Amino acid sequence: MEKKNENALVSKIERRFGAGKSKSLLLGLGDDAALWSPKRGQELILTCDWFLERTHFLRDKHPADAVGWKSLARAVSDVAAMGGAPRCFLLSLALPAELTGKWLEEFMGGLRRASRTFGCVLAGGDTTRRSTVLISIAVVGEIARRLAVVRSGAKAGDAVYVSGTLGEADLGLLQLRRTRTMARAANAAMRKHLYPRPRLELGQWLAKEHLASAMMDLSDGLSTDLPRLCRASGVGARIDAEQLPVSSVERIADARSLALHGGDDYELLFTVAKKNVKRVPRQFAGLRLTCIGETTRERKILVSEGAREVPLHSAGWDPFRSGKDA
Amino acid sequence: MEKKNENALVSKIERRFGAGKSKSLLLGLGDDAALWSPKRGQELILTCDWFLERTHFLRDKHPADAVGWKSLARAVSDVAAMGGAPRCFLLSLALPAELTGKWLEEFMGGLRRASRTFGCVLAGGDTTRRSTVLISIAVVGEIARRLAVVRSGAKAGDAVYVSGTLGEADLGLLQLRRTRTMARAANAAMRKHLYPRPRLELGQWLAKEHLASAMMDLSDGLSTDLPRLCRASGVGARIDAEQLPVSSVERIADARSLALHGGDDYELLFTVAKKNVKRVPRQFAGLRLTCIGETTRERKILVSEGAREVPLHSAGWDPFRSGKDA
Repeated sequence: MEKKNENALVSKIERRFGAGKSKSLLLGLGDDAALWSPKRGQELILTCDWFLERTHFLRDKHPADAVGWKSLARAVSDVAAMGGAPRCFLLSLALPAELTGKWLEEFMGGLRRASRTFGCVLAGGDTTRRSTVLISIAVVGEIARRLAVVRSGAKAGDAVYVSGTLGEADLGLLQLRRTRTMARAANAAMRKHLYPRPRLELGQWLAKEHLASAMMDLSDGLSTDLPRLCRASGVGARIDAEQLPVSSVERIADARSLALHGGDDYELLFTVAKKNVKRVPRQFAGLRLTCIGETTRERKILVSEGAREVPLHSAGWDPFRSGKDA
Repeated sequence: MEKKNENALVSKIERRFGAGKSKSLLLGLGDDAALWSPKRGQELILTCDWFLERTHFLRDKHPADAVGWKSLARAVSDVAAMGGAPRCFLLSLALPAELTGKWLEEFMGGLRRASRTFGCVLAGGDTTRRSTVLISIAVVGEIARRLAVVRSGAKAGDAVYVSGTLGEADLGLLQLRRTRTMARAANAAMRKHLYPRPRLELGQWLAKEHLASAMMDLSDGLSTDLPRLCRASGVGARIDAEQLPVSSVERIADARSLALHGGDDYELLFTVAKKNVKRVPRQFAGLRLTCIGETTRERKILVSEGAREVPLHSAGWDPFRSGKDA
């Protein structure tokens, strides 16, 4: 089963193409985004993300406006995770002929609002016809030289932080699944599921202040993404379940489970060297920053709850671990 | 019907997002690729292309190796059409779990060969699981300042040129449709259909020499692409059917029809001011260059065959004009 999951697939592609085959490619596969330096002293961030009907959204549940917003937000979040600023994007769009009217208008409405909010301009794209809606978005961002924060920079003993609250977006998805009508951003959980906000300002600030030793965005859930960051850095981690920032809307039995395994939050996960911890505020521009544990020399991911300490099993979203092809 | 075709869809997106909303975006939607200037004096070329099972290839007919090659070649061809050099690409790949073995290996083999041949490095990507193979490739290229050749530069009275031969790739597709087995690059037509060669050197030379007044690549067929170039330039054109460079393998009844309407050739279509025509060689590095007509003040696309002159109707490939969603 392991053979088929997404990490293994990326490793396979990485092995085949080799890492760092070009001098100007500072960082290739395996991080949130690539770092490319076309000119000395210049660093560009390149990333792309799928947003597919049935896999990532449902046409009868997700409003076209939210599909437009979220398709760009997901890709922009990878730029935030490096500490960069998004500049422009390419849109690959395939859709059925009957959606080229109202649906397309609403989709573009959400996409344009996201584009303006994130300061990321539509540069071009490719369109074709297809029975299901397929979206792939590639984003180009910029960052000052040597400021980019990658996944591999954590040292054992660093504090592990997350921004905002965890699990809300997954709770929104649960709510959406329970209803039969088109979803609306009626509460915090649904808002976060439909209209995630990439943490651009926070990412840029952490990079500029040299505060984060490693960083990534939480798209597939903490239990899937934290092991990725730890593997890249060659460390383990110990997480305190009682410290997990669960949302106030999640006063439900499985709030912690949602926070550990729920995907789609697009919060930032970052590590901070112990000597810098005092420089991390409790809030950044109204956004909560929470220390949830620390990295360890021993390469295990453990989660403690009171006196009990157990290995953290990845239960976040991995398309190649789910049962069926969409 | 017109409402639903690809040109109309792109116009709709263009209207909604507006053109040139960012000072650094020198050229946005509607050309082969976008031109982005992150720094003064620097110009980057951005483009993306779909390559989808059932829409662009058939899993049981197209070898995975050719799928890998062609998916990159298509996108790189847009960079050639601006006169630029491709640098790196992002791969969005969705595929069924059962294809993550041998099929993926062969796909990566073709993709890697294309990557090396075109000098375009894999920078990153996104993978997910899906019942059909979906590929979207975004390419970043470079070009010296103000050298990029766009579609809109043709003036009335310019000579219209094409590189290579036309219609071969479509003939290859016809051959492929007739057989029941996996296709092989057994002849020139099949080679061109399976392993197209973006005209990078030619495009760069035409740009550097300031020879082409307008340029684009022929992906959807001359009868679809020439009107696009003419519309962008505000001119018409008169094409001489007898001058069309049909391949020697096409000594068949419909060679001219294939040359006019056949897609997937990835040859360059370019215009040259009359005063520069004498500087255009008959061949460039072994590749034939043929003058097939001229642009006109009157905004019609006409094709002459002997004494007869008729309007050229677009019959190239347009996904939104075909009957069904794939």
